[in-house]
Amino acid sequence: MQITKNPPRENWNSLTDRPVKEANDLTTIIKEVFDNVNEQGDKALKEYTLKFDKANLSNFKVSQDEINAASTSLSLELKEAIALAKNNIEVFHSAQLTQKKVIETAPGVSCWQEMRPIEKVGLYIPGGTAPLFSTILMLGIPSKLAGCKEIVLCTPPNAKGEVNPAILYAAQLVGVTNIFKLGGVQAIAALTYGTESVPNVYKIFGPGNQFVTGAKQYALTQGVAIDMPAGPSELMVVADQLADPAFVASDLLSQAEHGHDSQVICVANTIESLVAIEAEVTAQLAVLPRRDMATSAIANSQLVLIENTMDQIDFINEYAPEHLILNVQNENLYLDRIVNSGSVFIGPYTPESAGDYASGTNHTLPTNAYARMYSGVNMDAFTKKITFQKLSKEGIESIGSAIELMAEAEGLQAHKNAVTLRLESLKK
Amino acid sequence: MQITKNPPRENWNSLTDRPVKEANDLTTIIKEVFDNVNEQGDKALKEYTLKFDKANLSNFKVSQDEINAASTSLSLELKEAIALAKNNIEVFHSAQLTQKKVIETAPGVSCWQEMRPIEKVGLYIPGGTAPLFSTILMLGIPSKLAGCKEIVLCTPPNAKGEVNPAILYAAQLVGVTNIFKLGGVQAIAALTYGTESVPNVYKIFGPGNQFVTGAKQYALTQGVAIDMPAGPSELMVVADQLADPAFVASDLLSQAEHGHDSQVICVANTIESLVAIEAEVTAQLAVLPRRDMATSAIANSQLVLIENTMDQIDFINEYAPEHLILNVQNENLYLDRIVNSGSVFIGPYTPESAGDYASGTNHTLPTNAYARMYSGVNMDAFTKKITFQKLSKEGIESIGSAIELMAEAEGLQAHKNAVTLRLESLKK
Repeated sequence: MQITKNPPRENWNSLTDRPVKEANDLTTIIKEVFDNVNEQGDKALKEYTLKFDKANLSNFKVSQDEINAASTSLSLELKEAIALAKNNIEVFHSAQLTQKKVIETAPGVSCWQEMRPIEKVGLYIPGGTAPLFSTILMLGIPSKLAGCKEIVLCTPPNAKGEVNPAILYAAQLVGVTNIFKLGGVQAIAALTYGTESVPNVYKIFGPGNQFVTGAKQYALTQGVAIDMPAGPSELMVVADQLADPAFVASDLLSQAEHGHDSQVICVANTIESLVAIEAEVTAQLAVLPRRDMATSAIANSQLVLIENTMDQIDFINEYAPEHLILNVQNENLYLDRIVNSGSVFIGPYTPESAGDYASGTNHTLPTNAYARMYSGVNMDAFTKKITFQKLSKEGIESIGSAIELMAEAEGLQAHKNAVTLRLESLKK
Repeated sequence: MQITKNPPRENWNSLTDRPVKEANDLTTIIKEVFDNVNEQGDKALKEYTLKFDKANLSNFKVSQDEINAASTSLSLELKEAIALAKNNIEVFHSAQLTQKKVIETAPGVSCWQEMRPIEKVGLYIPGGTAPLFSTILMLGIPSKLAGCKEIVLCTPPNAKGEVNPAILYAAQLVGVTNIFKLGGVQAIAALTYGTESVPNVYKIFGPGNQFVTGAKQYALTQGVAIDMPAGPSELMVVADQLADPAFVASDLLSQAEHGHDSQVICVANTIESLVAIEAEVTAQLAVLPRRDMATSAIANSQLVLIENTMDQIDFINEYAPEHLILNVQNENLYLDRIVNSGSVFIGPYTPESAGDYASGTNHTLPTNAYARMYSGVNMDAFTKKITFQKLSKEGIESIGSAIELMAEAEGLQAHKNAVTLRLESLKK
């Protein structure tokens, strides 16, 4: 790993640049799959599943028998761990549900907001080597708490037409309505348009490869909402001279093992810390099962010496990290000044893994500097807020003439008229 | 207007269909303008402003002298009306700011969310006949309350290089940082990339014609966020037999005067109401200054008899109206059951105009059935929420082994290791 000492601000850009993404334009293939699924429905899904997943399925829907078998196959220990995580995620997310608060903005003018569920949501969980059942908890639990009526999960089958049991177990536990053995672009297309067997949804959530994220972007143009734009995962750790180098290195590596394109940046205020952290990274990396992936990610990564705390904070906000670990003693100097980050982990005993699995916060977070303008997934993501207002006779009398004047100044006579008629009726 | 009596559910689709949009593909022209602005900066802006707005400007930024002159030219009456609206909008939106609420999800595990401003936002206000200064209040006031540091307004000049004084007055009143005389695709491109004179922003808000809304969609692909997808404005009114037909007709027309493609739907529980409302629409329409526009919009519109209240509610939720007026006595039967709508106006004295201008709620709302998954603009739109978490030694001990088990089951050994190292250090 490269160590950069006190980089001048004009060079920060080169340190905080994200790894360059492949610029493949997948639009043509994605549009073709969407059009076919829209026109042919299940027939197209069957063909694509055979072609891409090598599975010959006559029925995409996971049966109750398959779910029961999955549940039996999981260890009691793992089920208990999942139950603990579920409880914490429920506690944290249910605290975000807001009650209506009626505001009298002017005499007789009552206004309020109420949260309502998005009625139909789709969750996508990738297949592959790591069965991301934790992401089902992160997306399924808040959608259930929000009151979403239809919660549809798509996840690709293996060539035998099977889905990982931990995924099925987590899905039924959180209350997913329907699970379909569908992956890739065809799954996102099915959720967008609906087919004979798959219901369409209003918003699609979840991670995926470049085809899936491209498909979600395309779904957006077809009138469906998505959770957020996607990019490779990333972590910034700020370590002071008291931070244990082994802890810091383990956090950097837990991010690095996500994928070849993951990025980690470590900021410290002494060169001794950085040297010790680098040595720990090398030692721990050597024994990791996913060391190939972690090694490439570490190659994208930076060790940066920034001595001044306020400069560190500016550097954090410029990078806008998805995950930020503050392994420092003087955390209060930082917290109120962090403007751009997805999720912040404070102190020596708060690894990113805590939030990835079981502390209760959500792990679906904005990458690629999108933390400048997007929140991570929270209850807002599964709901929308409707405004309500009610004016009494006193209310229209108190603000009516202001409305008339403004409508007239905008040249909208019918807007004015709707008020004038009411005010006149009250004079009779 | 067509009256439809008790339509069967399978025909609701045909009544709630939005007017077909022009399917012009503007991508080529939009991409060309974006590329030129990205490469040539102010030079490209100058050329496009001359070409499209016929204004030859050497400087896009509105000067303090121009702002002062605008303020002098407005009537005291109108300024007072704007001040009243501003106050109500501030009261309603500031009540949406949330304080952090620390949740102890497990012993020693503290988690919370905090709101942070989006640091740089861009507001677009169209030119043309109706100077939409009310939209500046609706976008500028919450961005200021949120704490956005840079609030950049773009609005097209007339051929003399001037901007409507009400727009300038409202912009300085709410605290816009910089006002630029820029319109159309080039304005959105400038906000996306930044130029020598225009700063780039992280999120773009505001209405516009098909070029501007296309440009906002394109900006989204360039890494900028936008408020929401756009469509023609729409209103649904539910009237019971006690609703004054003149009030209902005035509300329908206030929506219809927005544009040729606006849509209004009126639902009533008696045929007598519908007949009376139609007669009032005809009478009021005849004397409107914008009757040409309102007449086309009324042609897109529907009068629908639905006698049963629960059926009416299902019809509302299927349409997902941007604006919903409930001009009924038994409002409580409706309110909790409304799931899909942007903003709801309750009772005989709450015209849509109230929320358009001065009640305090926001008038930037989801159209085109997007109310199924998007909120209108509120404080959430100008902020994002960061999650924070801090585990004590007790905290990592209480959830550590669950994290280890789950990480292992997902095949992520480094994630597990970050916890194991900490648990072991506590055993020493």
